[in-house]
Amino acid sequence: MNIIPRQSGTSLKLKKGQVLTVIDPEGGQVSDMVLFNANEKGEKLSSGKTLDFEETILITEGHHLWSNRSRKMMKILEDSNGRNDFLLAPCSPETFKILYGIEEYHPSCFENLSINLKEYGISPDDIPTAFNIFMNVQFDQHGKITVAPPTSRAGDRVRFEALMDLVVGLTACSAEDSNGGSFKPIHYQVD
Amino acid sequence: MNIIPRQSGTSLKLKKGQVLTVIDPEGGQVSDMVLFNANEKGEKLSSGKTLDFEETILITEGHHLWSNRSRKMMKILEDSNGRNDFLLAPCSPETFKILYGIEEYHPSCFENLSINLKEYGISPDDIPTAFNIFMNVQFDQHGKITVAPPTSRAGDRVRFEALMDLVVGLTACSAEDSNGGSFKPIHYQVD
Repeated sequence: MNIIPRQSGTSLKLKKGQVLTVIDPEGGQVSDMVLFNANEKGEKLSSGKTLDFEETILITEGHHLWSNRSRKMMKILEDSNGRNDFLLAPCSPETFKILYGIEEYHPSCFENLSINLKEYGISPDDIPTAFNIFMNVQFDQHGKITVAPPTSRAGDRVRFEALMDLVVGLTACSAEDSNGGSFKPIHYQVD
Repeated sequence: MNIIPRQSGTSLKLKKGQVLTVIDPEGGQVSDMVLFNANEKGEKLSSGKTLDFEETILITEGHHLWSNRSRKMMKILEDSNGRNDFLLAPCSPETFKILYGIEEYHPSCFENLSINLKEYGISPDDIPTAFNIFMNVQFDQHGKITVAPPTSRAGDRVRFEALMDLVVGLTACSAEDSNGGSFKPIHYQVD
């Protein structure tokens, strides 16, 4: 079992066929995930292609995560919680300034993804909208978006099968509103 | 007035402060639009950042279109129809194969954006989820997505103010389902 400390991130490689399990060990904690084809970094996770091909905003067990080249990157084998978000970009330094009025330094998923993906030659501009595991974004029929605390409980997990060789960026999210006001670690394992 | 013939596209530059008006001359026709900072092409339109900062799925008059660097690229000054989409990626050759089972060549927004943006050094992999003007994507509380015919009528228009120097990709969309089964031109002007 690997641990991502609170408000931090990591990167890892997956071979096609390997299974990544992302676990919320304490409950109520979001993990942002981005994906790149390990052999051609221009191919990456696409929220627009995923929502189009899966014909739903709410991506969960049985769905696939698709790339900007219209290929399946991962299959979701299991989702014990069942609520994830694929609408919102990773929280960034600007998120805290613009949405929350916080002027001083604040850790963010965008920074944590940028730092950890640099070793793979991926630049901050290349980071797409993340698949936000356990994130509970509510929307009404008028489109209004609100960020609610995750419904995940201690031990909830999502299992992803890699359908191509991948570089993965993964965080323990740093935004107060996304995580019910407290920051917890994220666990993961690769099988 | 400039004309984008049916199932085609164009690209253009806007200086900061210029206003782009996109017009549906016959009604019921979608236009996909992507944006890049003209001076640093790594900065581009981001659906995830826009939905996050505007706190709504349905982007219309008064909202801004935001970049992956969390900066405002355009302001929507006017939207006479009021329904646009920012969930779905531009239709691509694979859209027609995977969603509609069409094996032969089919024109697509992705191809039309790729061809027209090449002169600016923008590669197909760089094309983000487009702002789909006049596109009528319905979603229910379970997240289920359905593509309905546009509600736009002849002469409906959306006016965008450029908030930085921009390269713009713009299409007359090529997908049957998005355009009520028939393909029409898109008009635009720059003031």
